[in-house]
Amino acid sequence: MKTKHLLTGSFLGVLALLTSNVRAADPLPSWNEGAAKQSITAFVEKVTKEGTPGFVPIPERIATFDNDGCLWSEQPLYFQLFFAMDRIKTLAPQHPEWKDKEPFASLLKGDVKAALAGGEASLVQIVMATHAGLTTEEFEKAVADWIATAKHPKTGKPFTSMVYQPMLELLTYLRSNGFKTFIVSGGGIEFMRPWTEKVYGIPPEQVVGSSGGLKYELRDGKPVLVKLPEIALNDDKEGKPVGIQRHIGRRPIAAFGNSDGDLAMLQWTAAGPGPRFCLYVHHTDAEREYAYDRASHIGKLDKGLDEAAAKGWTVVDMKADWKVIYPP
Amino acid sequence: MKTKHLLTGSFLGVLALLTSNVRAADPLPSWNEGAAKQSITAFVEKVTKEGTPGFVPIPERIATFDNDGCLWSEQPLYFQLFFAMDRIKTLAPQHPEWKDKEPFASLLKGDVKAALAGGEASLVQIVMATHAGLTTEEFEKAVADWIATAKHPKTGKPFTSMVYQPMLELLTYLRSNGFKTFIVSGGGIEFMRPWTEKVYGIPPEQVVGSSGGLKYELRDGKPVLVKLPEIALNDDKEGKPVGIQRHIGRRPIAAFGNSDGDLAMLQWTAAGPGPRFCLYVHHTDAEREYAYDRASHIGKLDKGLDEAAAKGWTVVDMKADWKVIYPP
Repeated sequence: MKTKHLLTGSFLGVLALLTSNVRAADPLPSWNEGAAKQSITAFVEKVTKEGTPGFVPIPERIATFDNDGCLWSEQPLYFQLFFAMDRIKTLAPQHPEWKDKEPFASLLKGDVKAALAGGEASLVQIVMATHAGLTTEEFEKAVADWIATAKHPKTGKPFTSMVYQPMLELLTYLRSNGFKTFIVSGGGIEFMRPWTEKVYGIPPEQVVGSSGGLKYELRDGKPVLVKLPEIALNDDKEGKPVGIQRHIGRRPIAAFGNSDGDLAMLQWTAAGPGPRFCLYVHHTDAEREYAYDRASHIGKLDKGLDEAAAKGWTVVDMKADWKVIYPP
Repeated sequence: MKTKHLLTGSFLGVLALLTSNVRAADPLPSWNEGAAKQSITAFVEKVTKEGTPGFVPIPERIATFDNDGCLWSEQPLYFQLFFAMDRIKTLAPQHPEWKDKEPFASLLKGDVKAALAGGEASLVQIVMATHAGLTTEEFEKAVADWIATAKHPKTGKPFTSMVYQPMLELLTYLRSNGFKTFIVSGGGIEFMRPWTEKVYGIPPEQVVGSSGGLKYELRDGKPVLVKLPEIALNDDKEGKPVGIQRHIGRRPIAAFGNSDGDLAMLQWTAAGPGPRFCLYVHHTDAEREYAYDRASHIGKLDKGLDEAAAKGWTVVDMKADWKVIYPP
């Protein structure tokens, strides 16, 4: 009896020690003290305090994050487009017709602006031509190889080094408080999954993104899934709540974005009962990253800024609120 | 220093105590000793033994389960069809045209056989008429209300009491060994999610199923998702590996089914590298449940039985392998 009590006592002692150590350290060291940081910690403290009206049980602590411009940079082009353009160069010898066909012809000449002049239709053509036809395993390998070697044209860094250190801390902080963290991105689901676990600690099954059709077939008696040139889900704007419902099946209590493409996700999150948290990352730091909002072609944040002001959502001023942008 | 060591020592001691207690108890008490049970525990021991070639890291321990006929009964009709038929009766006053229109007319007369004579086309009509048009929240409430009150026509039990006790133990056993358990069912994803967490311990985000289209819109300024009368994923047969890829993004190492509708899922699982486990539940118990296989209209198990024999997959003989069918 006595031994058991001693064991239990020490066990609880160790737990208390661990807990107080965690409490003592600042979980968000790259965030400057201010309203944004304070709103985050106040929300987390509220939903984790058992026996209070704001308490949210662990299974309901769902947090969704946009990826491009929210967890990593997205300028001067979505990083997935650099991947697609590199693939077009790789595949060009097998497609002599591309020399005279837009948007491929301009891309091969290095004129990205002309290639994207066709807007979304051009984008879809580029993505289909570079993503479809492969098996899921071949595509995963292509992404993994590219992400391990490709460099950003301005910083010269690997793309996965251009993730936001303060957001990495936020992901960890939420998870250590019982949250399940999901990505909900307009980017391709299979473009993100090969590296999100290593970079963000988010496993493939917690990644929601735009997806194409898939076909199950046997190749030499071996089952494969082949990527089809068709869209199964456009996980952007109104598609984000749809993707959340399909994949997660419950409404997030916290959502994080940076553009008008995330507005429906934030509205959907905010409209649920109980405590809710919505946050926009506002790109205000031309020196350390990029500064853009209402007039930007990529990551346009216009209606979202107005709604955030009207609803009292948190808006992160990157320049003022973040001590560092990228991991050291 | 000394205090720290003492604390650490006791902490490990308590952990060892807890572990040995778990080991000592039979994790599958409703399974008779035999080849099926032995194959399960041998697989779990293999993949959890660190430092051996069979070891599988925790994040890769993905297990997928069919629902109808694998986790709960599916005779004399899929339980979701009882839900749909009850809804047709409820909705009939708003649809006077159903009196003269198949499959509704036969259903309203109680002639299920005639109603389903049209095969899959009739099924789709019934499901669309009863599932589409509602918001996801309205539909969730309709399912939750029905599942709490409806009774099975033969046993008189609530449908969620007709889950298989040995499979509940198996789910718990796998989870306690670091597995993440998913449902991958031909049934409707939103028909399962309202109750799978309570009944199986499987949260909504780990349920994959057939799904319809969804439309995000504002109703009285409040965002809602409306169920559309169109199929987004038919999560059956070759659709199961597709659903697995879309939702989970990695290949299971263990898969559990009971019909030819699960064969592609088991093949997809078996075709990966490293240790793999595939299991078919064979319905052999006419007395305690139902007996059916190669000639059944529901849950037909024909090609699957042959492939299981050829590949050495585990086949559970319900009559011989299970001490009880339903929870006491």
